[in-house]
Amino acid sequence: MKLSDRSYMPIITLVFLLLLSVALAVSARAETKESRKNFDLAVDEKGKIHLPTVNFQRDWTALGTWAIAAEEGTQGSEGFHIVYTQPGSVSAFLKTGTFPDGTIIIKELYEATSQEMTTGTVSHATITTGWFVMIKDTKNRYPHNTSWGNGWGWAHFDVDDKKNSTSVDYRDACLSCHEPAKNTDWLYLQGYPILTRK
Amino acid sequence: MKLSDRSYMPIITLVFLLLLSVALAVSARAETKESRKNFDLAVDEKGKIHLPTVNFQRDWTALGTWAIAAEEGTQGSEGFHIVYTQPGSVSAFLKTGTFPDGTIIIKELYEATSQEMTTGTVSHATITTGWFVMIKDTKNRYPHNTSWGNGWGWAHFDVDDKKNSTSVDYRDACLSCHEPAKNTDWLYLQGYPILTRK
Repeated sequence: MKLSDRSYMPIITLVFLLLLSVALAVSARAETKESRKNFDLAVDEKGKIHLPTVNFQRDWTALGTWAIAAEEGTQGSEGFHIVYTQPGSVSAFLKTGTFPDGTIIIKELYEATSQEMTTGTVSHATITTGWFVMIKDTKNRYPHNTSWGNGWGWAHFDVDDKKNSTSVDYRDACLSCHEPAKNTDWLYLQGYPILTRK
Repeated sequence: MKLSDRSYMPIITLVFLLLLSVALAVSARAETKESRKNFDLAVDEKGKIHLPTVNFQRDWTALGTWAIAAEEGTQGSEGFHIVYTQPGSVSAFLKTGTFPDGTIIIKELYEATSQEMTTGTVSHATITTGWFVMIKDTKNRYPHNTSWGNGWGWAHFDVDDKKNSTSVDYRDACLSCHEPAKNTDWLYLQGYPILTRK
């Protein structure tokens, strides 16, 4: 009787391993589906990046604002960079400490104006002048496309053309300014309090 | 035959009016339900306001950022005020030009720091120091509560207590600073490009 019980062990192990494989495959497939959906928002089949057509200003998380100081001797800000990403990417980052494949980061560039208000000299955004877009690519999908590398797709758009980027090679157009943030996956995380909030 | 047809007219009119009343009642009820849901996020039955417990930094629209200039002779910003509202309220505003009953506006107060970056002297938010909350009330729900008036509920919270506001009378604590924005329902709309975007 005991021996007969033990004889089922290999079958039980096999069934367990089979179920585990199915679970892992389903989970990997789900992740790919989510990534694919995000890539479809911003990238064509050849890796050409366009500005996502979703209403990210209304529906995505504003990670943070960078205020560019007006010239020396003048108070206030002359520009704002407002950075957006998908709410789901924020949640994933808070769990894992990294942005998942398919994360889109949009830095919207604004001119700013300053005025005297009840709280002092205060600046606010006025008009949009363009966008920088980054798309997290953990799979090195487009090795021969000069908009892709270092784990991201990179592109800059003037306000008049959301489909064709002005940037040709991300190493010239994007990477040099992100070099100081190399150790945090090329992102200036210190400006995004929501990612470090306790 | 013709006469007989006409004799149905009062009944047809009556049925039409009945259907119209039902449609209007359903629509009014839906609006009340949405308003109620929003009030429940931030207000108790006596009109006491608390900071909404939702993850508004992740899930709501960032309407705009106000950067407070550092003291004269210094470049950069010493604080940011980042203003959030519900995505549905943004959509409603774009349709009607006003914020619907139950709209919640949260102004999150941040300290800021400035540093030399590749784009110049740049400031970003660091820690949260408190919040101002406004809740649109088109029905004058709490006429005897000093946090309510001029079409809104008004409250300020220190970062350490999200349940009990520091503000007692909105006329002293809030209204004086909003006086210049009286003609735009007490809001500084010029800082919220998403509401005027073509």
